[in-house]
Amino acid sequence: MGQHYKDIAKIALERRETAIPKEYLLPQESLINLPQNLTTIPKTSGHFTAGELEIIESNAEDILLKIKAKIWTSLEVTKAFSKAAIVAQQLTNCLTEILIPEALARAQFLDDHLATTGQVIGPLHGLPISLKDCMVTPPHPSSLGMACYANEATSEETVLVSVLAKLGAVFYVKTNVPTAMMMMETINNVWGETRGAYHSGTSCGGSSGGEGVLLAMRGSPLGVGTDIGGSIRIPSAFNGLYGLKPTFGRFPVYGTKSGITGQDFIFSNNGPMSRSLEAIKLYCKAVLSTEISPWNLDPKCLAVPWRGEAITPKERKLRFGIISDNDGEWSVHPPIARGLAMAKKALEAAGHEVFEWVPTNHPEIAHEMNSSFHTLGGAAILNLTEQHEEPVFGSMKAYEVTHKKGEGNLGPTKLRDMITRRNAFQKAYMDRWNATAQDGQVMDGIIMPSSPWTAPRLGFTQKVFSVNFTGVWNLLGS
Amino acid sequence: MGQHYKDIAKIALERRETAIPKEYLLPQESLINLPQNLTTIPKTSGHFTAGELEIIESNAEDILLKIKAKIWTSLEVTKAFSKAAIVAQQLTNCLTEILIPEALARAQFLDDHLATTGQVIGPLHGLPISLKDCMVTPPHPSSLGMACYANEATSEETVLVSVLAKLGAVFYVKTNVPTAMMMMETINNVWGETRGAYHSGTSCGGSSGGEGVLLAMRGSPLGVGTDIGGSIRIPSAFNGLYGLKPTFGRFPVYGTKSGITGQDFIFSNNGPMSRSLEAIKLYCKAVLSTEISPWNLDPKCLAVPWRGEAITPKERKLRFGIISDNDGEWSVHPPIARGLAMAKKALEAAGHEVFEWVPTNHPEIAHEMNSSFHTLGGAAILNLTEQHEEPVFGSMKAYEVTHKKGEGNLGPTKLRDMITRRNAFQKAYMDRWNATAQDGQVMDGIIMPSSPWTAPRLGFTQKVFSVNFTGVWNLLGS
Repeated sequence: MGQHYKDIAKIALERRETAIPKEYLLPQESLINLPQNLTTIPKTSGHFTAGELEIIESNAEDILLKIKAKIWTSLEVTKAFSKAAIVAQQLTNCLTEILIPEALARAQFLDDHLATTGQVIGPLHGLPISLKDCMVTPPHPSSLGMACYANEATSEETVLVSVLAKLGAVFYVKTNVPTAMMMMETINNVWGETRGAYHSGTSCGGSSGGEGVLLAMRGSPLGVGTDIGGSIRIPSAFNGLYGLKPTFGRFPVYGTKSGITGQDFIFSNNGPMSRSLEAIKLYCKAVLSTEISPWNLDPKCLAVPWRGEAITPKERKLRFGIISDNDGEWSVHPPIARGLAMAKKALEAAGHEVFEWVPTNHPEIAHEMNSSFHTLGGAAILNLTEQHEEPVFGSMKAYEVTHKKGEGNLGPTKLRDMITRRNAFQKAYMDRWNATAQDGQVMDGIIMPSSPWTAPRLGFTQKVFSVNFTGVWNLLGS
Repeated sequence: MGQHYKDIAKIALERRETAIPKEYLLPQESLINLPQNLTTIPKTSGHFTAGELEIIESNAEDILLKIKAKIWTSLEVTKAFSKAAIVAQQLTNCLTEILIPEALARAQFLDDHLATTGQVIGPLHGLPISLKDCMVTPPHPSSLGMACYANEATSEETVLVSVLAKLGAVFYVKTNVPTAMMMMETINNVWGETRGAYHSGTSCGGSSGGEGVLLAMRGSPLGVGTDIGGSIRIPSAFNGLYGLKPTFGRFPVYGTKSGITGQDFIFSNNGPMSRSLEAIKLYCKAVLSTEISPWNLDPKCLAVPWRGEAITPKERKLRFGIISDNDGEWSVHPPIARGLAMAKKALEAAGHEVFEWVPTNHPEIAHEMNSSFHTLGGAAILNLTEQHEEPVFGSMKAYEVTHKKGEGNLGPTKLRDMITRRNAFQKAYMDRWNATAQDGQVMDGIIMPSSPWTAPRLGFTQKVFSVNFTGVWNLLGS
């Protein structure tokens, strides 16, 4: 038995505490009688200067322009977001590693470079980018919310982190995740629980939940999440953000720390999250550029630059399927149904077509995914958490159950059957998609919920768990 | 226990016998005192007309031009290759299913279409294409050299078969493989052993061995093989052919019958084999065209059309690594070393650069691949062959050994370790490749043996087995 998780957590929490610049903290008296909606606090607290507020309320694309035009320095931008991130941390517990000193040095370096050469080093020059905890930034630990990793120095930088650095990004904070990144809300035995931003009694979602709430709190203009069953899409939905879960192979993934290392039945992806859609586009274009050629850095990344103009001809009518009520198993709450109806109406008003899409096989696909995580992840997670006597959260009990069945729960025949079923689901869905063709044009997309609920009460998803709306796409894309 | 394999084989062999047009057969007296080199027989036997010989000695690209120009009909071309294929079958035992009646009807249809409309239906209009046995052409069985499948009607056509049909191909024969396509020579308990074309005492290679010898015997202008460890490259080398094993994801694979269904630790690919390099290019361009868009038919196929001009600028010097002697474990026979030296000399004379490439980790990578086949394929293959009391060939004994260890031989932890090692090999090799860069240009390719030997004596590889030279690339590309 290793060190007890509580002792490990204590060290990690002290490290985080020490890394917080005290002058960024809201004074204690501001923490009394907090409103439920925490996102208003930066504006109303009087803690931020007008200049800082202007920066943290700006979108990434505007910040980049202002840095390039020398209206703002990267240093002042980084300071403003660092301060907002620390406030977000105080209010929601969304951070893990805090890298502010090195971020300020990096920002200064970039400012000097621009001043000296007149050139930005890349399209993300000087922009603070927040990173989900699994993005490795040596030598800082990458805990994944697990005691075993919480204080372990790292050495191999995640390829995507190197790429973003080359593009000019400044890394200043890393964000909290649930244990092994396998829950839909953000809580673990090291850093504790992360609360929602728009209502402090609700969940920020998961597993990129710290990222979600940090963005909602104006503590970051652009963040990077990962998604293996909904982990970008669910916190984006709960925190009012744009979030992109790309298809596997599109973005480099090598060196991202995994909750279930070596599991490739369902691929994990990474992607951007932001309050700005333009920032998402800008990120994709920058990372998937021929200048960067990330496909030379990760054998799983495809040599295909970002396709800016996917819709041709540009002004044509779009056609969408919509899953407006339930997926064959889970019915959505009224606010979700209302949101979908609004989206449908708005699209139709703009001249597009929206038709009801039958979610054939969705529950079966989601079941296959959930069950594969338990089969392939039980030992991977429990062998590590048990060493430090970490308790298992409610929504992860199935991992424990499967782990207790032992290694014999997966043999080559079962594995091959799983893969055969997965591939058949993929082919059948592709054929159904193609069958929507009208005049040779298939539907452009499917509009559907990210979750049956808006952000639920903290702890709710430990009892009622469903990543089915998002998870089908992880299995279909693997 | 099911029907005995010998009874099953009898039915299959009778079906094949019945499907042979008797007028295509060499007379019995021609089969006495055969030369060792069988490839000369079509020319010297007097069995073929001058017109037939001209057709079967032609390259695919010329045949297509002549059909399009109405100099030849698809019917006469199909008849000539059918006759040559039957002769090849007589001399080497290279065929499984014989589809001549439907091929002739199809050729006639294409000729009529061209006559009526003045148009070809696609870039492969009227061309006979031979198919490895695992390409499913319903309702014909696809045995994979296994009794369990030998007489089983099929219903779902392989996606690639549908694609080739749409492009204008005519299917007339399917070609022999080793049991489950997991040997490097071609022998099984249903169809028996396929001999080599250039020396009837040697192996035709495997697993696309029937395809290899059929092409060498002028029984086909263009064939389709599959490759999971060398199965296109080894028979191409043994039979003096061009063969392309593409990277996984490049070509559609859905619906190809697999020797180890659901195994995806090492991906199986398919690709063209031919005596003509131009035919290989033509095939790639046709299959990976936007008109066909095979990526809409197979979820694993990437939406990337064939890149005709991969080398830019066009006339630049190329740089190749060469593995000219051994891979760190297997030394090559003198004829292989001589061939590599000739290639090096020719490239250098043409102004290119060839430098010795250190095959770091090659033996470890090949070991990982071989061992994964046994782990993942033992039950898959033996559960089927044991039902019909099929004996296990020498080079497949390891499958039997692993199968006897039972399903417990693979658990989730072992699987994840295998995947982690595989992915690390891939990343390390990519980094080594990139480290060859000079002025921003990495090396263009690696020249190396396909096997330690030229075509060995029949039966030799049951005792001495090595697909290591080819297999490293299957693991690195998975």
